[in-house]
Amino acid sequence: MNRVVIGYCPKCRWLLRAAWLAQELLSTFEDELEEVALSKRSAGVFLVELNGEVIADRKRDGGFPELPALKRLVRDRIAPGRDLGHLDRQG
Amino acid sequence: MNRVVIGYCPKCRWLLRAAWLAQELLSTFEDELEEVALSKRSAGVFLVELNGEVIADRKRDGGFPELPALKRLVRDRIAPGRDLGHLDRQG
Repeated sequence: MNRVVIGYCPKCRWLLRAAWLAQELLSTFEDELEEVALSKRSAGVFLVELNGEVIADRKRDGGFPELPALKRLVRDRIAPGRDLGHLDRQG
Repeated sequence: MNRVVIGYCPKCRWLLRAAWLAQELLSTFEDELEEVALSKRSAGVFLVELNGEVIADRKRDGGFPELPALKRLVRDRIAPGRDLGHLDRQG
């Protein structure tokens, strides 16, 4: 069972960004992803975990994950070889 | 840790409804709710679980949960006595 957790700081008003990413991932990986959890974290935190691995972390990476890059990171782990179309041709 | 799971049928195009409810619950219960998971379920299923208890189920209840009623069900379990303002004065 592939599971994503999006940890976000509610006081920073990042719930909408987290919910947007959740919907994008659940749509793109409708067959491969079973669950995406929106999970409260402390001040300044915004991260994305896939099956326990932190694949994006605002503090560690110096910014929010870009959607195309995040989708490639997820694809490489749970749907290797799958073509993401235009997302694969973006920088 | 208070946790909600919203189980939805993706083929029925109910992801957007599930994500909307998730954002409503995480906003209204920002202090009491730690996590809301969007979780794929089989055809025709739409349900809401709070700490393992199914508090709304489309098939069982004969329809989707109405937002005010759902918020009252959650409030009664994780924030008893809390006034939900206009939501408490709706049918």
